[in-house]
Amino acid sequence: MLSLNELQTLLTRYAETHPFPAQPATLYEPCNYMLSLGGKRLRPLMVLVGCQLYTDAIEAALPAAWAVELFHNFTLIHDDIMDAASLRRGQPTVHTRWNANTGILSGDVMLIYAYKHLLHTANAEAAADLVRIFNRIAIEVCEGQQHDLDFEQRDDVSLEEYLRMIEQKTAVLLGGALEMGARCAEAPATDREHLYRFGCLAGTAFQIQDDWLDTYGQTARVGKQIGGDILQNKKTFLVLKTLERATEADQHTLRQWLRTPADTPGKVEAVRAIFDRYDMVNYAAQAKAKLRSAAFEQLNRISAPLHRQEPLRQLVEQLLERDQ
Amino acid sequence: MLSLNELQTLLTRYAETHPFPAQPATLYEPCNYMLSLGGKRLRPLMVLVGCQLYTDAIEAALPAAWAVELFHNFTLIHDDIMDAASLRRGQPTVHTRWNANTGILSGDVMLIYAYKHLLHTANAEAAADLVRIFNRIAIEVCEGQQHDLDFEQRDDVSLEEYLRMIEQKTAVLLGGALEMGARCAEAPATDREHLYRFGCLAGTAFQIQDDWLDTYGQTARVGKQIGGDILQNKKTFLVLKTLERATEADQHTLRQWLRTPADTPGKVEAVRAIFDRYDMVNYAAQAKAKLRSAAFEQLNRISAPLHRQEPLRQLVEQLLERDQ
Repeated sequence: MLSLNELQTLLTRYAETHPFPAQPATLYEPCNYMLSLGGKRLRPLMVLVGCQLYTDAIEAALPAAWAVELFHNFTLIHDDIMDAASLRRGQPTVHTRWNANTGILSGDVMLIYAYKHLLHTANAEAAADLVRIFNRIAIEVCEGQQHDLDFEQRDDVSLEEYLRMIEQKTAVLLGGALEMGARCAEAPATDREHLYRFGCLAGTAFQIQDDWLDTYGQTARVGKQIGGDILQNKKTFLVLKTLERATEADQHTLRQWLRTPADTPGKVEAVRAIFDRYDMVNYAAQAKAKLRSAAFEQLNRISAPLHRQEPLRQLVEQLLERDQ
Repeated sequence: MLSLNELQTLLTRYAETHPFPAQPATLYEPCNYMLSLGGKRLRPLMVLVGCQLYTDAIEAALPAAWAVELFHNFTLIHDDIMDAASLRRGQPTVHTRWNANTGILSGDVMLIYAYKHLLHTANAEAAADLVRIFNRIAIEVCEGQQHDLDFEQRDDVSLEEYLRMIEQKTAVLLGGALEMGARCAEAPATDREHLYRFGCLAGTAFQIQDDWLDTYGQTARVGKQIGGDILQNKKTFLVLKTLERATEADQHTLRQWLRTPADTPGKVEAVRAIFDRYDMVNYAAQAKAKLRSAAFEQLNRISAPLHRQEPLRQLVEQLLERDQ
């Protein structure tokens, strides 16, 4: 069995030996640039640890792992255009460094390459199954992104809708990655289902943690400016849960703040004070803990031997324990 | 064996019985809108006639046919954004009727649905092969679109580069459609190869005809304003072939005209006069005829019985005989 670091190395080697073509450079350079911005390669690692639950023959899962990473980067390129985001991991986004057309087309071809890698999987049955899982997930991710865009225009988004949106937009890809890895190892269908649910639940817990960190984290550890969500008037877990619980007067005040521009003095402090009044640190921790335990309940039901689960458990524990 | 009209009806029925989901409407309405703008459904018909060369069991090719149509519409939505085109078939383009974000995301999900339909194909071997062909074609189409964008910035595009670009951007999809149809019918590999080449060559001939029609056609029959390419300074077959043949003085004059704004008085007439001086009507007809005969040479080499080739030959003859 391989450690997370060893899996990471295998993945890097696969990526290096399966580069994009050199030409047209105007199409593929932006793809390489996006991939070079780094990131944790969490999703492809999920594919590999998902496969390793059942077998040491994880080479079979490398194409699917890389496909998942390409898909993730495709969504980042297109989402950055839609969100008009100029920076990602401190570097110019693709559409900022080049232009929107380049972002659209390079994203498109990256998505197609994701399918191309999926088809590197040796046997046709496995390849067809992987494409089926991938399609199901990819459609959910698009729908989640659409809901996210729609929610920006709405004032009446419920916490339930929000949780479903973040599940679709980000968590199902973690679940799908595990499911694909397990499929590469020919794992039993019930295990695949549990792994999918585990990933969805853990991914949603991770997003709630992310919302919490954006307001209550420490810049040095989170790696981004604290309070960004508040400044951008994002409807996060903290906002929606507060709106559920607050008096009408406080709901009104919060809504007022979330209509002010980012440079309004005292904005972050004022909004955080309302969150504090309704004990949001606690509610976020509870919601996360509940999802996390539901997640591990799913994981406890799979048939893979416990010792093979170690890298997966380690990966998800790392993910869910930042700063808390 | 079914006629082109009967195949068209089957395709419409497949589309009607496999609609997009209703929700989120903001994501799927633009997809339905784009598909409702009509068009000849040429590409999916190519899949069906490609299959019918070998078998009457063309139901097997319907998912792939619809996948090809969805792919084509995905490229139209994204290309319209990249070209800042406000009208398509006389109706507002998706990004004009909604906005660019909607165009990006609806296009993305349409591409994913294309893969989803490909996977409706019953057996895994066929599905995997179809996805492989589809990926190869889709990558070429993206590369062709990138070359097209790049050529707008360049002054030294050769006719050869142009022909390769239009082949990638539009013709390979016709070839790929035939190849996919033939694969659905389990046709021999050599036949599939000939059919692919036939489609590429016929598609390139069609593009040259299209360039010719844009300058020399009749508005009523072409269905769009004559001279549009000239007004938009497009580097078409007519421009590039003229630049190959003209005196330095005429090359200079032509290049000058192709730097003027669309509303420059007398622009279309002046450019057409230069084309006429170098006999472009004739050159375009020759180039088209040469490609067409090379195309049919490929078709003549397939093993399918001649009477089964009738719908395909009819479809391509119709395509290549507009106004000439």
